[in-house]
Amino acid sequence: MKIGKETIPKTSISTSDEHTIVVRGRDLSRELIGKISFTDYFYLLVTGREPNAAATAVLDATLVAIAEHGLVPSVQASRMTLAAAPDAVQGAVAAGILGCGSVILGASETAGRMFDEIRNRASKSNETIDEASLAVVKSYREARRAIPGYGHPLHKERDPRVNALFTVAQESGANLEYVAISEAVERAIPKVVGKDLKLNVSAAIPAVLLGVGFPLNALKGVPILARTGGLIGHLTEEFERPIGFALSYQATRELVYDGDVPEHVTLGSRTS
Amino acid sequence: MKIGKETIPKTSISTSDEHTIVVRGRDLSRELIGKISFTDYFYLLVTGREPNAAATAVLDATLVAIAEHGLVPSVQASRMTLAAAPDAVQGAVAAGILGCGSVILGASETAGRMFDEIRNRASKSNETIDEASLAVVKSYREARRAIPGYGHPLHKERDPRVNALFTVAQESGANLEYVAISEAVERAIPKVVGKDLKLNVSAAIPAVLLGVGFPLNALKGVPILARTGGLIGHLTEEFERPIGFALSYQATRELVYDGDVPEHVTLGSRTS
Amino acid sequence: MKIGKETIPKTSISTSDEHTIVVRGRDLSRELIGKISFTDYFYLLVTGREPNAAATAVLDATLVAIAEHGLVPSVQASRMTLAAAPDAVQGAVAAGILGCGSVILGASETAGRMFDEIRNRASKSNETIDEASLAVVKSYREARRAIPGYGHPLHKERDPRVNALFTVAQESGANLEYVAISEAVERAIPKVVGKDLKLNVSAAIPAVLLGVGFPLNALKGVPILARTGGLIGHLTEEFERPIGFALSYQATRELVYDGDVPEHVTLGSRTS
Amino acid sequence: MKIGKETIPKTSISTSDEHTIVVRGRDLSRELIGKISFTDYFYLLVTGREPNAAATAVLDATLVAIAEHGLVPSVQASRMTLAAAPDAVQGAVAAGILGCGSVILGASETAGRMFDEIRNRASKSNETIDEASLAVVKSYREARRAIPGYGHPLHKERDPRVNALFTVAQESGANLEYVAISEAVERAIPKVVGKDLKLNVSAAIPAVLLGVGFPLNALKGVPILARTGGLIGHLTEEFERPIGFALSYQATRELVYDGDVPEHVTLGSRTS
Repeated sequence: MKIGKETIPKTSISTSDEHTIVVRGRDLSRELIGKISFTDYFYLLVTGREPNAAATAVLDATLVAIAEHGLVPSVQASRMTLAAAPDAVQGAVAAGILGCGSVILGASETAGRMFDEIRNRASKSNETIDEASLAVVKSYREARRAIPGYGHPLHKERDPRVNALFTVAQESGANLEYVAISEAVERAIPKVVGKDLKLNVSAAIPAVLLGVGFPLNALKGVPILARTGGLIGHLTEEFERPIGFALSYQATRELVYDGDVPEHVTLGSRTS
Repeated sequence: MKIGKETIPKTSISTSDEHTIVVRGRDLSRELIGKISFTDYFYLLVTGREPNAAATAVLDATLVAIAEHGLVPSVQASRMTLAAAPDAVQGAVAAGILGCGSVILGASETAGRMFDEIRNRASKSNETIDEASLAVVKSYREARRAIPGYGHPLHKERDPRVNALFTVAQESGANLEYVAISEAVERAIPKVVGKDLKLNVSAAIPAVLLGVGFPLNALKGVPILARTGGLIGHLTEEFERPIGFALSYQATRELVYDGDVPEHVTLGSRTS
Repeated sequence: MKIGKETIPKTSISTSDEHTIVVRGRDLSRELIGKISFTDYFYLLVTGREPNAAATAVLDATLVAIAEHGLVPSVQASRMTLAAAPDAVQGAVAAGILGCGSVILGASETAGRMFDEIRNRASKSNETIDEASLAVVKSYREARRAIPGYGHPLHKERDPRVNALFTVAQESGANLEYVAISEAVERAIPKVVGKDLKLNVSAAIPAVLLGVGFPLNALKGVPILARTGGLIGHLTEEFERPIGFALSYQATRELVYDGDVPEHVTLGSRTS
Repeated sequence: MKIGKETIPKTSISTSDEHTIVVRGRDLSRELIGKISFTDYFYLLVTGREPNAAATAVLDATLVAIAEHGLVPSVQASRMTLAAAPDAVQGAVAAGILGCGSVILGASETAGRMFDEIRNRASKSNETIDEASLAVVKSYREARRAIPGYGHPLHKERDPRVNALFTVAQESGANLEYVAISEAVERAIPKVVGKDLKLNVSAAIPAVLLGVGFPLNALKGVPILARTGGLIGHLTEEFERPIGFALSYQATRELVYDGDVPEHVTLGSRTS
C-alpha cells in the first residue's frame, strides 16, 4: 500500500558491495574498526561527522551517567521477561527499553526541546535567558505540561550526576549555552511552580549534548543506548543469579484484591 | 505468585542513597562520569571489572564492526515502526532489536558457545584444536544444527570485518586462543559440510571477545548494544528524511496474492 | 525506588488460591470457560461488566474489521522479525504491535477522544452536534493537529468497513449518538479543511464502541488485540511459506545511497 | 540484501483494491464484519477455513482459560512499562507479550509438539499411547528437557482450568485423541520423573486445540492473543488506578545489595 508521496527510499548512512562496507563515507573495515571508539562511532552514525574532543568527552559522560541506576522499573520488567523467556535475550532488552518513555527517560528529549525553545525566544525577542526561561516555564505551566528534567523522587538536592556532567562540559571546552539555560530554568521554577525542583540528570543530558552539536532528534537515543548497556549488565547477572521471579513475588506480597468474589468461593491464602 | 524457590532478590550491580549512586563498587558521579569511556563502563557493568587496554580495544572494535550494515531487515522493521508510531522512538528501537535473533545477529553467542565447547574438548581429551574442531563440527552436522558464524549472503570471501577484528586483537595483545579455534573451524567446515563457508563477523566477534575475558552469557549483548546505536542513527535519519512507508510500498510491489477471491468481486489495481 | 505516593498495589481484576481463580467476580473454571466467548470475556476484563447483545455484536464487528488488511508495514515488520528470530514468536508479534502508533492504528483512540470532546461541548453549550463538530474541527486545525480517522491512502470513498460497522450498530440496537457525531465531523471537514476526507475504519470503531459502553481508555486496545490475531495468521503463514527476507530484499531494490564513498573505493553491484 | 533464495513474496491471506478488502477468499465488509465472531475469524485467519461448532467452542474456551491469572510477571512488566511510558500503550502491551516465553506461556506450543511426537510414534510403531508416552517422556528426561505443561507453582492438584477445558472438548464433540495422550503423559511422569506433576493449563490447551484442527505452528499464538486481551484489561485499570510504580517499589523492599561500596561512602537509607 502506498502511504505518503515518497516511493523511492534514500539513505546516506551506509552502502556496500561484496568487498567493502561504507558507513558515513568511510570504509568500515579499513578506516573505522580499530580506529574509532564506539562512542565516537555513535556520534558519527547519528550526525555524519566525527566528534571533536569536547563532543567525545560529553557524549561518553552522558552515556555513563544514565546507563545504570539499580533496579528501576524498566530493569525489573526486563529481568522478569528474561526469567519467563530465557531463550530470547533480545526480547528482555526490548521490554526494558520500552520503559524509556515520557515519564522516565524520555525527559532528556523534551527538556532539550524546551531549552531550544528558550534559546530561540531569547534570540528573537532580545530577552535575557532568565526572562525567556521564565516566560517558557510559565507557558508550560499554563498548558499544564510538566517541566521536564527537574525534581527527582530520590535526589531532592541536585542529582549528583548533574554537577559531574557540567564539570565535564566545562573542562572539555564544550559550548555552555544550554547549560546556562538549564540553570536559568532551575531559577525560574520556584517563581512559577512554587517548589524548588532541582535539575536532574534528564535535563543535564541535553544541556551538555546540545552544546557539542548533538541533534535534538537524536536526544532520546542517548538514554536508550545507555540503558541498553545497563540492561545487558543486569541480564548477564540474571543468567547467573536469577531474581526475576523473586522480584515479581515481592511485588505482590502486599497486593490488595478489592474486586468481588463469587458467593460459593472461600479463598485460602491468596496469590494475587 | 511464588515461582521458584528464591524470594529475596539480590544484586551486586548498583545501590544508592539520596547523595550517592554506587555502581560496581564505584561512586558514579565522582569516579566514573567523565573518567571512563562508555565502552569501558559497559565492560565494567557486565563483568564487574575494568577492562585492560586489550579488552578496551577489542570491545570497541566489535561494537563498531557490528553496529551498522545498511538497510538490513531489522533496520527496515524499525524505520517502518517509527513511521507508524513516531511518538514512541523506544518502540521503534525495540522493534529493531527484536530482529537480533538466532538467524541474524544471535550467531555471535552460539558461535561463542561452539568455540568454548571445542576448547573444553581439546583440553580434556588431549586433542589438537583442529581435531576437536572437526569433531564438534561433525556433531553439529549430525544433529542438523547450523554452524553459526560461517558463510554470508553477500561476503562470499571472508567478511572484510573479520580480518579487521583479528588485527585489532593481535595488535592489542589480546589472548588469541579463540581466534585460532575460529580458524580451525573454518578449515574443518569444507571437510564436513563440503562447502567453503568463510568466517563472518558473527564468528569473529566471540573469537576476539572471549580472549579478553568477556563472558559467554553476555556475548549476545554486543550485537544488541551495537545495533541499538545503529538504529538510533537510522531513526534520526528517518525523522529528517522518512522512508519507512516507501520501503513498505516497495516491499509489496511484486507481491503475489494466490488465495481465493469471492465470485462477485473483480479487483481493480491490487494493493497487496 | 519510591516513585509517586502510592505504595500498596490494588487490583479488582483477579485473585486466586490453589483451587480457584476468580476473574471479575466470577469463578474462571466453573463460570467462564466454556460459557462465555472470548469477545465477551474481553469486554468483561476491560469493563468489569458482561456485555449486552448490542455490545457483543459491535465489539465482534470492530475486532473483525481491523484485524487484517494485507501486508501493511506492521505486518512486514513482524514477518521480517520472525525470519530473523524464528525461535521467538512473541518477539515477532511484539514488533508488529509496536507499529500500532499514532499515525496508523492509534487513530481509533484519538478519534474517540475527539468525539467525546464534541459531545461534551454540545451538551454544555447547547450547540447542535454539527455546530460543535465544526468548532472542534476548527480548533484541531488551528492547533495544527490532524483530524484522526478521516481519509485513507487507498479507500478514497468511504472505507467499505465503515458502513458495515454502522449497519451492525444500527441493527443490534446500539446507541448511535457517537455515529451521528462521526458523520457530523465528516460534514464539517470540507468546510474547514477544504478537502473531502471520508470516514475511515479508525473513526468508525470508536463511533460504534462508545455507544455500547466501551471505555475511552481501552479504545486503543481494540486495534491492538485485533491486529495480534491478524499477526498470528501471518506468522503461521510465515512458518510455512517464508517471505520475510524476500520483502526485505524487494524493499531495497530501488534504494538510493546518496552519501559519500571513500576515494579509494569503487563499489560493485551495491546491496543497499 | 538478498538473504535466501526466494525474492518474490507470496501470500494467500488478504488482497484489496479501493472498494473491496478480500480476506481468506471472503469480502471482509460484506461477508465477515457483523457475520462472524472474532474467535471464528481468528480461526479463519490462521487456518484458511471456518471452524465447525466444536472448534469454535474449544478455541473460545482456551482463549478464556489463559487470558488472565492476576498480576503474573508479564502483567507486572506491562503495567510498569505503562507507568513509565503512558503515551505508548502498544509498548506496554508488547512488553507484556515478550514474557510469553519458553518458561511461562510457551509451554502450550512445546507440549503440543510433544503430543504430536507421541501420536506419530504410536502410529508408526504400533505402540499403545501409554507406551509411546512413556518412551517420549523418558527421551525428554534423558536429554534433560523439561516436560512442558505439567506441574504448577500454585495449583498442585490438577489446575482447575484443565477439567473445564476437557469438558468443553467432550461436550462439543471435539476429537479427543490428544486429550487422551495428555493424560497418558500425566500417568507416565511419576514413573520416569518420580514426582506426581499434574496437567496444567499449558498442556490442556494443545490437547484440546489439536483435536479441532488448529495447527501446531499457531499454538503459541493462542496464549499470546489471549494474554493481549488480559493485558488490555490491566492497562485500562492502570490508567484509572495506577500501581506500576507501587509494584516496582514493593519488588525491591527486601532487595539485598551484596556488591562493594567505595571506602569514602557511607550510604544512608538505600534505595536499591
